[in-house]
Amino acid sequence: MNSSRVVPVSLGAASYEIRIAPTSLGSIAECADWWKGSSQAVIITDANVEVPYARQVAEALAEDLEVHLLVVDPGEPSKSTATAVALWECLLETGIDRKTVVLAVGGGVIGDLAGFIAATFARGLPFVQIPTSLLAQVDSSVGGKVGINLPAAKNIVGAFWQPRGVLIDPDVLETLPPREYQSGLAEVVKYGVIQDVEFFAWLEGNAQPINARENGPLVHAIARCCELKAEVVAEDEREVTGHRAILNFGHTFAHAIETVTEYGQFLHGEAVAIGMVQAAQLAERMGRVDAEFTSRLKQLLTIFDLPTVAPAGLDTDELISAMSRDKKVEAGQVRFVLPTKLGHVELTSDVAEEDLRAILQTRG
Amino acid sequence: MNSSRVVPVSLGAASYEIRIAPTSLGSIAECADWWKGSSQAVIITDANVEVPYARQVAEALAEDLEVHLLVVDPGEPSKSTATAVALWECLLETGIDRKTVVLAVGGGVIGDLAGFIAATFARGLPFVQIPTSLLAQVDSSVGGKVGINLPAAKNIVGAFWQPRGVLIDPDVLETLPPREYQSGLAEVVKYGVIQDVEFFAWLEGNAQPINARENGPLVHAIARCCELKAEVVAEDEREVTGHRAILNFGHTFAHAIETVTEYGQFLHGEAVAIGMVQAAQLAERMGRVDAEFTSRLKQLLTIFDLPTVAPAGLDTDELISAMSRDKKVEAGQVRFVLPTKLGHVELTSDVAEEDLRAILQTRG
Repeated sequence: MNSSRVVPVSLGAASYEIRIAPTSLGSIAECADWWKGSSQAVIITDANVEVPYARQVAEALAEDLEVHLLVVDPGEPSKSTATAVALWECLLETGIDRKTVVLAVGGGVIGDLAGFIAATFARGLPFVQIPTSLLAQVDSSVGGKVGINLPAAKNIVGAFWQPRGVLIDPDVLETLPPREYQSGLAEVVKYGVIQDVEFFAWLEGNAQPINARENGPLVHAIARCCELKAEVVAEDEREVTGHRAILNFGHTFAHAIETVTEYGQFLHGEAVAIGMVQAAQLAERMGRVDAEFTSRLKQLLTIFDLPTVAPAGLDTDELISAMSRDKKVEAGQVRFVLPTKLGHVELTSDVAEEDLRAILQTRG
Repeated sequence: MNSSRVVPVSLGAASYEIRIAPTSLGSIAECADWWKGSSQAVIITDANVEVPYARQVAEALAEDLEVHLLVVDPGEPSKSTATAVALWECLLETGIDRKTVVLAVGGGVIGDLAGFIAATFARGLPFVQIPTSLLAQVDSSVGGKVGINLPAAKNIVGAFWQPRGVLIDPDVLETLPPREYQSGLAEVVKYGVIQDVEFFAWLEGNAQPINARENGPLVHAIARCCELKAEVVAEDEREVTGHRAILNFGHTFAHAIETVTEYGQFLHGEAVAIGMVQAAQLAERMGRVDAEFTSRLKQLLTIFDLPTVAPAGLDTDELISAMSRDKKVEAGQVRFVLPTKLGHVELTSDVAEEDLRAILQTRG
């Protein structure tokens, strides 16, 4: 079965393709149209992904390009100003030119970091995403958001920088640790909730093969998520109309949980799973959805082995304070993405603090 | 005499206006269309410009906006990664939102630095340029190039980030030190050489009032330079077609001189003046222009009290090595912008090293 898929991302002159194909890493040279005119490539990766994936990409490119492999420490701390400065210095020493293509081979941290470097070195270098985590494949590698963290705020320094192309090889997921894989599934579920009730139902019916990481269903799930995200991004590339905000369903709660637990307890997708349930509970309390909505959501997340309840002991005031420092806040107003039915959400700042507190204090 | 002028910069959805008007700093609130929807403003300036100009802008805005004034050290060292990180941290602490407008009040260093901060904070904030040096008014504030330096390379980290508008008040030039003013005139002369022989002739005829900083001729000169630069930028916003490279006339030589003298001996415009003469001499040696071209150029620069000869003792090999590290180098080829006649230049990489060495060794 040839399960390859191509998802176009329509952004005028910045349009590009997401190519999803098993065993495609080793044949990345076939994507040479993405770096036409380049004589050099810089691969940015981390020590977890370097062997075998980044090396495999480097070897596949070495026939056509002069390849430089830059390896950073794995994990969120590498999305720092210090790492960015070190990479800028490194690119300068390498003697690359303005047509040098930057390839991110790794998860969301690498994609965001490498993309920020590509966006800012020599006022912008061509960029290619090769996401190796499920989360990055269905979310962070699509849409052009790149950036780094400051100690007090994630992703606060960054840019919109669209890649020339995204190459997704589902085979790389075989080596992904279970929690990382499940964390990616939280974002997969999100697309069903916010945009596509049929996809949500398809996930309910295909949860077992998805959990078994079967290639065919996986390619379909990844492609559908990319299509759904591409639709949103095409409509609101730079998050100005407000439409792109629907992608943040569950994320206001999730970011608050991540902040209060100092990013040590939950993977991003795990926090998003809890956050989506909290958003559903808030919507239910406000009479926007019925109890069945919340229970179907919780059930699917549970089948994917994701948490659906915030841990005991989180301070409600601290959570609310973290929400009000989120960079999506505008003129002091915290805005929430709340569902009206499966497949549809809306952005609202019309949430009573009393309701919010009630949800944050809910256990189970 | 009402000497106000408006120069449109046509860049599709990113189009904006350059408004040139005496005594306009104090009435900047009239430009409120540039920050529609903003409730806060951040003014980035340096300690030389803070009083009176940045304070004047802050006061004029304070009726409509919550204004934050951030003051950095004057001079090129502030265009550093360290200052950028400090400003990012500062914006985060200030608690600004995504609609906060960033205003650069200062010379080229401030415009480039503040623009880079605006381009990268929260993935991009609205930006307004209020250039207070002649160089910034006719060159760096137009065209959207923003950035910072690494120790080994100027402007190597940056972005294209178009402002919402540029406000130029020629009155601020009254307090500009003579060398700074003359340095700006080098770029003014450049526009005549590369694009507009009539403007070159007008400068020859109006050199005295320009030297006396008379308001009327000054507004005309600034507006014409902005128009000429805007034409180029509209045709090649992101320096991809090669057309924008004509603005670098004299700059390959100038950057090499600045690098070898460690940016300590010449102001940028002074190095550009010498660089333009060297480019003219190279073109003359290659038979592209006649001796009259070079002598008219030298004469006009001399009237504006600008240097036209490189200092003795610069090492030719070091100069050539600096040129080959310039970020405009592509696939190892140093490219030169050379004139064919007054008002027209062309980009070429077809320069024999022998000719280049001969020019670099010329004294006078």
